[in-house]
Amino acid sequence: MITGKNLIGYSESAKGTNTFCAFSPLNLKELDEVFTETDKAEVELAFEKADAAFKEYRLWSGSRKSSFLNKITEHLESNRKHITARAVLETGLTEARLNNEMNRTINQIKMFAALVLEGSWVEASIDRAVPDRPGTPKPDIRKMLRPLGPVVVFGASNFPLAFSVAGGDTTSALAAGNPVLVKAHPSHPGTSELVARTILAAARESDAPEGVFSMLVGKGFDSGQMMVKNPHAKAVAFTGSLAGGKALYDLAQQREEPIPVFAEMGSLNPIFVMRDKQESETSAIAGMIASSVNMGAGQFCTKPGLVIMEETPKSNDFVDYLRNEFSSMENQVMLNEGISSRYNESINYLANYSNVEILYSAKDGEKLRGRPVIAVASAQDFISNPSLQYEVFGPYTLVVRCSNKNEMKEIASSLAGQLSVTFFAGDREMADNCDLVNLLEDKTGRLIFNEVPTGLEVCSSTQHGGPFPATTDSRFTSVGTGAIKRFVRPVAYQNWPDNLLPAELRDDNPLSIWRLDDNQWHM
Amino acid sequence: MITGKNLIGYSESAKGTNTFCAFSPLNLKELDEVFTETDKAEVELAFEKADAAFKEYRLWSGSRKSSFLNKITEHLESNRKHITARAVLETGLTEARLNNEMNRTINQIKMFAALVLEGSWVEASIDRAVPDRPGTPKPDIRKMLRPLGPVVVFGASNFPLAFSVAGGDTTSALAAGNPVLVKAHPSHPGTSELVARTILAAARESDAPEGVFSMLVGKGFDSGQMMVKNPHAKAVAFTGSLAGGKALYDLAQQREEPIPVFAEMGSLNPIFVMRDKQESETSAIAGMIASSVNMGAGQFCTKPGLVIMEETPKSNDFVDYLRNEFSSMENQVMLNEGISSRYNESINYLANYSNVEILYSAKDGEKLRGRPVIAVASAQDFISNPSLQYEVFGPYTLVVRCSNKNEMKEIASSLAGQLSVTFFAGDREMADNCDLVNLLEDKTGRLIFNEVPTGLEVCSSTQHGGPFPATTDSRFTSVGTGAIKRFVRPVAYQNWPDNLLPAELRDDNPLSIWRLDDNQWHM
Repeated sequence: MITGKNLIGYSESAKGTNTFCAFSPLNLKELDEVFTETDKAEVELAFEKADAAFKEYRLWSGSRKSSFLNKITEHLESNRKHITARAVLETGLTEARLNNEMNRTINQIKMFAALVLEGSWVEASIDRAVPDRPGTPKPDIRKMLRPLGPVVVFGASNFPLAFSVAGGDTTSALAAGNPVLVKAHPSHPGTSELVARTILAAARESDAPEGVFSMLVGKGFDSGQMMVKNPHAKAVAFTGSLAGGKALYDLAQQREEPIPVFAEMGSLNPIFVMRDKQESETSAIAGMIASSVNMGAGQFCTKPGLVIMEETPKSNDFVDYLRNEFSSMENQVMLNEGISSRYNESINYLANYSNVEILYSAKDGEKLRGRPVIAVASAQDFISNPSLQYEVFGPYTLVVRCSNKNEMKEIASSLAGQLSVTFFAGDREMADNCDLVNLLEDKTGRLIFNEVPTGLEVCSSTQHGGPFPATTDSRFTSVGTGAIKRFVRPVAYQNWPDNLLPAELRDDNPLSIWRLDDNQWHM
Repeated sequence: MITGKNLIGYSESAKGTNTFCAFSPLNLKELDEVFTETDKAEVELAFEKADAAFKEYRLWSGSRKSSFLNKITEHLESNRKHITARAVLETGLTEARLNNEMNRTINQIKMFAALVLEGSWVEASIDRAVPDRPGTPKPDIRKMLRPLGPVVVFGASNFPLAFSVAGGDTTSALAAGNPVLVKAHPSHPGTSELVARTILAAARESDAPEGVFSMLVGKGFDSGQMMVKNPHAKAVAFTGSLAGGKALYDLAQQREEPIPVFAEMGSLNPIFVMRDKQESETSAIAGMIASSVNMGAGQFCTKPGLVIMEETPKSNDFVDYLRNEFSSMENQVMLNEGISSRYNESINYLANYSNVEILYSAKDGEKLRGRPVIAVASAQDFISNPSLQYEVFGPYTLVVRCSNKNEMKEIASSLAGQLSVTFFAGDREMADNCDLVNLLEDKTGRLIFNEVPTGLEVCSSTQHGGPFPATTDSRFTSVGTGAIKRFVRPVAYQNWPDNLLPAELRDDNPLSIWRLDDNQWHM
């Protein structure tokens, strides 16, 4: 059931005066349900409930949080068809893709459930007292990670499940022991409500305190800004554009108490195609790149938007293969009108840009359908035109032809921070290009060898982040188990009575977790 | 030899037009040496050298960095007398205290040298490929912490050795693989230069690239601001006042590329004295608190500036003991004129403040000598006057008398973020006051039981940090091995050739470090 209301703790509320409907990029028409934007009092109520809930929820054991998270997956599973059907309507993504995304969402939640059940993630560290140390006695000090407080999560348009209401941000924040307040994305408000209800159902069944989760509805910027400004908010997670993420970041830094903002704002994900591999696997690499660019209409933050190729006698072949691959791709539904129109504007700008040659552009078809486009530029033109470093969100990539290694290094030096950097190269060739690799390692959170950047693996070793402007905080990841570290801080207990310590720090290690104990790792 | 020049990489430079001399709070006169403030071109040169050095230094092995750090301790040790003698003159701290601080400084450096030599601190994580995973193959992904880039360190006035040029900030940043640019504190510029020369000597002997370390001189705000604004700067560490730290934080957030600022800005370090302990150990606790407040003229960020006591029939005795202890304390030299005059202003303000009663105030004596002062207020007066939460840096504390537990909880709720919160209580009493403890755990980075907050232990479990305004980033510590985590970010390597991986991530684990390997801890 979709009511269009704000879900504030266990209550529903629609006191605001602004309403809107979802728009289906698939049918190109408004959907029936009416959503009511949150008002100021509702935002404040949601935070008061979250703050009250935090006092209890922060003390929940890993096993209790784990059970709560697993219950969410049960409700997602039993509402899977209903949710994905609505998501198809609201996002235009295919049912197959959304089913996969639901799998990923459920697997992510289970991953965090397992992480907090196992318990070692808290980085427990124990230094035992040495009362007879010469000079001054050493006190007993123990330290572990503790939750920050209410976390604001902004749903992402391009991952209506895996990076929205019950996505990685919400799940990692809940797993850490923080209440979550989601700002539903106005492109898929119905999907958001359906998913929010699964979290609330799981919360009720787990006897979670009211306010551990709320979802607020808003189309414009006001609701999100009110959420970031609320003094009870202790952290913000966002996936979206540079403009949107930076605006929230600035707002959060201007608060009386600045708070961390984890904004993942996109990337060019440059691919460096070196000579040997380009010559030996010309068509295969062109095919992989074209598929990666066009997957999901190019609406991934990991889409490669830049292909930097070393000029070889076979480079024209490689470019031809790329063009041919692009010409075989179909126009695909884009997520919403804003994304579609910004994509068209960017392509029109590039088509009229003297230093860029459009290699191939599919015909513009039905409204809200993204057409595959590939362009080419010289290294010098790329370097001298910083606007070519702006991310074009959609099925577009720019090929930059470098006449020598120095130009590749110049480009590497000129690049801003990136989520990923990929090399297609031979083993020996990579070893011979350490300088280039080292330059680029300093610009990115993930280095990839002979694979495409899309299709990010969600695991303990995942790093999805990178230097600004890829994200606002390169020291953290928004994907993988490491994402939980965004929403915690260490607390030390000095000379603390053993029976009052959190279980993770007690002498007898009742949870059998890995701990650094007098500088040695022990379980 | 003290030249008064800026040490820019391996060169000396004094091109600026502004000069100043150090002022000795001990002798109340200016010292001879003339220091030349850095100019814009010198700042830029230092950062260009740091940026160039980073390209090499970031790749140094743990063992090579360890050897460099240990060499610094050798030079500090062989220049110990010279350095501490100058520091006595510039800070007015006693030789005994400065010798202890030198020991701490050397031990801190050795601690980081051992940490990076052992190597497990990089949080290496390996997920191995599963090519035949049903659905999609799992790629090989490996992750570890890598340095951020040039770090700006502001020397602290109250720790001329342990938190200045070769202090915990510099050492942890160097240990992580970052070049460091120190802004010398104008209160002890000669000490700073002497210490900087030990780092540069060690750098030369270690064949470190020029620019791995620079020290810039400045009396006003300009030089520090230029350093924070420089685009090559990737992080800032600061210990000092709220006003100073917050100004640097804001400046860093307003850059085109915002960078992390770790500002430790002080704290009230409240001590809660509960009924049982107050009655059973009245004089002992009063003595411990009075000593802790007056140690080093109260010029520690861990000084308890607030004593919240539960009213008992013996409370007047406890207050009398405190007063007596304070009346036996002597006026002590303060660090500089600014600190001394701000202390006197605060005391005068409080003396004229109707809601605070000065219990004892030593007579104002010689210039720049801090007089012990203790005041008392009611719980309601404290709660209704937020200005009583401002830190008074010096040998002063405020006792707040609470007529019941609710008032204690009200105070706990009203408190801003703190570096530490201490309880003097019986074991059973602590268990009975979980509500109060939980409220306070959310406000601090360190909870202490029946010990004073001064005398911070430097070890793996140390947490020296806390929610704003104690620091600008509660998720990190500025003391202990954890301090190294401020200056790194994770980088993932996907499908990366084994021979090109950092040693920490190679299949055969050549460094024998602890790693998370397919979600299991292994050495």
